[in-house]
Amino acid sequence: MFSVKTLFEPRNVILIGSSKTKEKVGLASPWLFKNVIYNMKKFFKGKTYILDVDGKIGLKSFDELPETPDLAVVMLPPKDSILYVERSAASGVKGFLIITGGFKDSQRQQLLKIKEEHDIGILGPNTVMGVINTANGLNTTFERDVMPRKGNIAVISQSGGVGACLLDWACFYNIGISKFAFMGDKIDVDDVDMLRYLGRDKETKVICLYMEGVKNGRKFIEEARKTVEKKPIIALKGGIVQESAHRAKSHTASMAGSNEVFEAALKKAGIIRVENMEDLMNAALALSKQPPMLGDNVAIVSNVGGPAILAADAVARNNLKLARLSEETKGAIERLYPGVDATNPIDMIADARADRYRKVLDLVLTDNNVDGVLVINMLKSCFFEPEDAKAILEVAAKHPDKPIVDVPAGGEDFELVYKVIGESSIPLYNLPEKGLKALKILRLYGKIIGNIKV
Amino acid sequence: MFSVKTLFEPRNVILIGSSKTKEKVGLASPWLFKNVIYNMKKFFKGKTYILDVDGKIGLKSFDELPETPDLAVVMLPPKDSILYVERSAASGVKGFLIITGGFKDSQRQQLLKIKEEHDIGILGPNTVMGVINTANGLNTTFERDVMPRKGNIAVISQSGGVGACLLDWACFYNIGISKFAFMGDKIDVDDVDMLRYLGRDKETKVICLYMEGVKNGRKFIEEARKTVEKKPIIALKGGIVQESAHRAKSHTASMAGSNEVFEAALKKAGIIRVENMEDLMNAALALSKQPPMLGDNVAIVSNVGGPAILAADAVARNNLKLARLSEETKGAIERLYPGVDATNPIDMIADARADRYRKVLDLVLTDNNVDGVLVINMLKSCFFEPEDAKAILEVAAKHPDKPIVDVPAGGEDFELVYKVIGESSIPLYNLPEKGLKALKILRLYGKIIGNIKV
Repeated sequence: MFSVKTLFEPRNVILIGSSKTKEKVGLASPWLFKNVIYNMKKFFKGKTYILDVDGKIGLKSFDELPETPDLAVVMLPPKDSILYVERSAASGVKGFLIITGGFKDSQRQQLLKIKEEHDIGILGPNTVMGVINTANGLNTTFERDVMPRKGNIAVISQSGGVGACLLDWACFYNIGISKFAFMGDKIDVDDVDMLRYLGRDKETKVICLYMEGVKNGRKFIEEARKTVEKKPIIALKGGIVQESAHRAKSHTASMAGSNEVFEAALKKAGIIRVENMEDLMNAALALSKQPPMLGDNVAIVSNVGGPAILAADAVARNNLKLARLSEETKGAIERLYPGVDATNPIDMIADARADRYRKVLDLVLTDNNVDGVLVINMLKSCFFEPEDAKAILEVAAKHPDKPIVDVPAGGEDFELVYKVIGESSIPLYNLPEKGLKALKILRLYGKIIGNIKV
Repeated sequence: MFSVKTLFEPRNVILIGSSKTKEKVGLASPWLFKNVIYNMKKFFKGKTYILDVDGKIGLKSFDELPETPDLAVVMLPPKDSILYVERSAASGVKGFLIITGGFKDSQRQQLLKIKEEHDIGILGPNTVMGVINTANGLNTTFERDVMPRKGNIAVISQSGGVGACLLDWACFYNIGISKFAFMGDKIDVDDVDMLRYLGRDKETKVICLYMEGVKNGRKFIEEARKTVEKKPIIALKGGIVQESAHRAKSHTASMAGSNEVFEAALKKAGIIRVENMEDLMNAALALSKQPPMLGDNVAIVSNVGGPAILAADAVARNNLKLARLSEETKGAIERLYPGVDATNPIDMIADARADRYRKVLDLVLTDNNVDGVLVINMLKSCFFEPEDAKAILEVAAKHPDKPIVDVPAGGEDFELVYKVIGESSIPLYNLPEKGLKALKILRLYGKIIGNIKV
């Protein structure tokens, strides 16, 4: 029997392509075939078999297979794809991933007929890049050596282009990924199946969706509601305006819903909605590293004035509140550092180093009036050194229930601090406003969990 | 007589600091003094004199100076700063830049008294990093080797921290800068003086402001209105909410106005307002490279579907319109490329390379229904190669009156295309939404100029 697990955790895989065929419009090409072979051989820990329908490389026929593969990755034009899906299904393969696109409705029906007959499962067609599982090295993408680092964020993209962009983003910014899936035309395996699988996947802590439309809205909402009890779901929706909705429809052959209907559905499902790909990745980073925020009150602890002011402005813009520190906290800070005015946002002055961060952060996180903290530590124009950022980790470990995000504001400053604590449990952002958005996301998930519990 | 020109274009400069004094809270330190000397010696094309008040390095006294310097950069604690401003003024120095902060009101009054007596000009105190002029290499910042590349964007920051962050951003992302100024406490030289100077500065095409408050609102609006006829002004305002406004007041000792008053004032002045530092730099990039957009109609030309849909959504969010291409344009594109549906947003399909971009872009830019174009060219999951991006430059050169921005969406993709056309006249953004925001800024400046002309 097929289960989505087969798509991500096959023991062995057969890659079916052609070393000759090159489609004019569409994806099938010897180049694509070779690149998928390259990535699978390089990364996949299971067994990879190769079937070239033109007989140049790999096996000559199915008969040469020493065992039945769990998963077939098909990279042929529609007609040949159907032929080889049927042959593989007949010989016992249960999972199918069809990279190539351009299938007509009648051809999609043929695939579904094979599915009924053989009890198989199909992801796609038109998935473009297929799937990645960083745990076992499964990588059916045709971009050589594009492999994100292991982590706990899963990404499901309906669009090849958006998926490719998110994958590039994750690799470039070193964002830890558990599973990556390009959905394509969704004739069989759909978002509901994916949510069910990822909801139970131990490697996945956060689920990111790029969607243009959903087929079975009610089931999707039900499954999402169950999932968000265990882990957050973040969604980016494409096709909001009429013109682009029309385009979305022709683009991946799914119905794009009206924006209002979608908004209401996501809210009901407890899904957090974001507005662009960077916000999606930034939100996932926060949720994958920090606890939900259980109240609205944000404290800002900074070694510079202006950026702290911009952060405070962003608190209001994100419907959060600037925490009013208790008199005890303020008194304690001002006694320790006579030059510092401990009114939130706290400007600890440019000569603050690890020790001052450690002490002030600890006092602020201990304050009951504070639900989450945004730290700003600039290097330029300040005495702060990259190593000082470790102090934030130390204090954070003492206060595991309150979220902390760090903003080494700027370009080089961000990179220097990232080298020291970028892979720690503290998410980093290069601007105060992005850090605040992250806290807002953590607050939203706090509210979603709260609502479920009530 | 003093003029702001002296601050940016001195023939010779005297750096006055101490090789001993280290303030507990504040900036004066031998380290800062040495770093400013280092940067000036390395970058400044004029003559640099050094006066160490502790007599360890440089000149022993003013008497040893072979000529009167145009500009004195003062890096001493308040009391000593006043003393040396007076001595320098008495010996004929006209321009003063005071890096250090912590001046009391009475001490500011003393400085102003010296100003009246000697007809000098003072930038600061508390400018933190002073000024940069990329044309003559003047660089009074204390961050070694932090020097942005030559360009035509001027940045004026009221806050040291925000200024340092913007400077770091400009250096890291290779954004071309003409002048950079940290305003500090603004006891004398203010935003109006800066606008007057930069409005006439041939190296400057765009002016960026970070402000927390203005002293002489009416004069500022008048000067800004005159300036925007010649070049755009973009402003980021810190201190919007009450709490951060309070902080802004204590931070650089200037009055933060209410947000509504500010918004109205900026609108009246024809200043474009943005919401964060990245938006400020991205807007400046667009205005420094592309013409204003003279209508609302945006065409999107892409080699991927999903990101084009996100761009189309962003068109609506930014109050622009998706251009309706003429039947001629659509027909011509579809005759050339039978697989392509030429409805805007145009998805030219993943195998589009330089030639298809060249032809489709040319047709789209020729269409009277199009006022500006957003190009998307992804590499991942596509056939596009970095060198293909040159086609965009070629077509853009044929249509100098319509703005074009390019979006190589993602992380590595952006970097690869940046290497080929990043320093050209086409501004690049790593997400569709950022490209759209840039077109919106170009549209806003188009409207501002239009209103002035009417």
